[in-house]
Amino acid sequence: MPTNARERLLVTAEELFYAEGIRAVGVERILSASGVGRASLYRHFPGKDDLVVAVLERRDQQWRAWLAERVAALGGGPLNVFDALAERFARADFRGCAFINTIVETADPDSAAHRVAAGHKERVTAYVAGLLAEDGHPDADELARELVLLADGAIVTALRERTTAPAHRARAVAAALLDRGPARPEPTPDS
Amino acid sequence: MPTNARERLLVTAEELFYAEGIRAVGVERILSASGVGRASLYRHFPGKDDLVVAVLERRDQQWRAWLAERVAALGGGPLNVFDALAERFARADFRGCAFINTIVETADPDSAAHRVAAGHKERVTAYVAGLLAEDGHPDADELARELVLLADGAIVTALRERTTAPAHRARAVAAALLDRGPARPEPTPDS
Repeated sequence: MPTNARERLLVTAEELFYAEGIRAVGVERILSASGVGRASLYRHFPGKDDLVVAVLERRDQQWRAWLAERVAALGGGPLNVFDALAERFARADFRGCAFINTIVETADPDSAAHRVAAGHKERVTAYVAGLLAEDGHPDADELARELVLLADGAIVTALRERTTAPAHRARAVAAALLDRGPARPEPTPDS
Repeated sequence: MPTNARERLLVTAEELFYAEGIRAVGVERILSASGVGRASLYRHFPGKDDLVVAVLERRDQQWRAWLAERVAALGGGPLNVFDALAERFARADFRGCAFINTIVETADPDSAAHRVAAGHKERVTAYVAGLLAEDGHPDADELARELVLLADGAIVTALRERTTAPAHRARAVAAALLDRGPARPEPTPDS
């Protein structure tokens, strides 16, 4: 546990929010679990929403650093994203995607937490597009959106089924897409 | 609003749970919105968990009936599942999948609500496998799991992006899978 009060609050809140949900975990619980005093909490985070946003911003950075490290270790290609997910799904503390969970729980697309969660997915998508472009895939941006949609589907399926199988299934679908080449089966209109 | 007290409670609770979340909506809120008395509520549902399970069981039946009706109207093929989802995403009250949301919110894989939610997805998967088998696709069971994973990915993406584009994107990926034919790109092990 870090000695710095702000960091202790962030580490404690992240762990509790992820395991039990943002609504389920109140400020009292975070104070007692972190050992930080109330005045110190409110000095760093005027309200619980500020704490939630700071937790998500920190997790965004750490999660993407973790993904880049694992993908590099597993081979460095876009399909290795799914191998990294399989490792995640196998963890005893796996509880889905903190950002999807936040969007579900806050139920407010205008909330700051929702915006941080949406920004996280955009940054992950840009990272996957970079892996695809490095591998010489045309139309890397749209393909990256397809792969991230598959990753999100795998994550919520793994949360329901509690196995790593959805990561392997999503990887197989992604591999079929990469084999498909530049010809697209049909347009994907925006609306 | 139905005149039967039990049905009024179910309709009111389903709407509020879906819009705001299961944790966010307490029993008091359901009583005042439904106009049903407390004694009547507890006669039908001894605890909030019983009400949550009854709401999900009812929604499972109604949602699958809706899907089958829309798929039939839209052409009757497995890809029409994604056209039906696009209609759903376009609704002003769209708030993702009630069953995914429940799994995220309850955070307990042993809860009755989690079991109903998991059962819902199994029944949807069996329905999609039936559509695929009718169309003559080999390995319909595994292909159905891939299509439902895509549907779940589209649902959580639509909840984040608030557009119908994820349904079209998932449809394009599914179409590529159906074109792929019987040769599978790699095994999809269970674990």
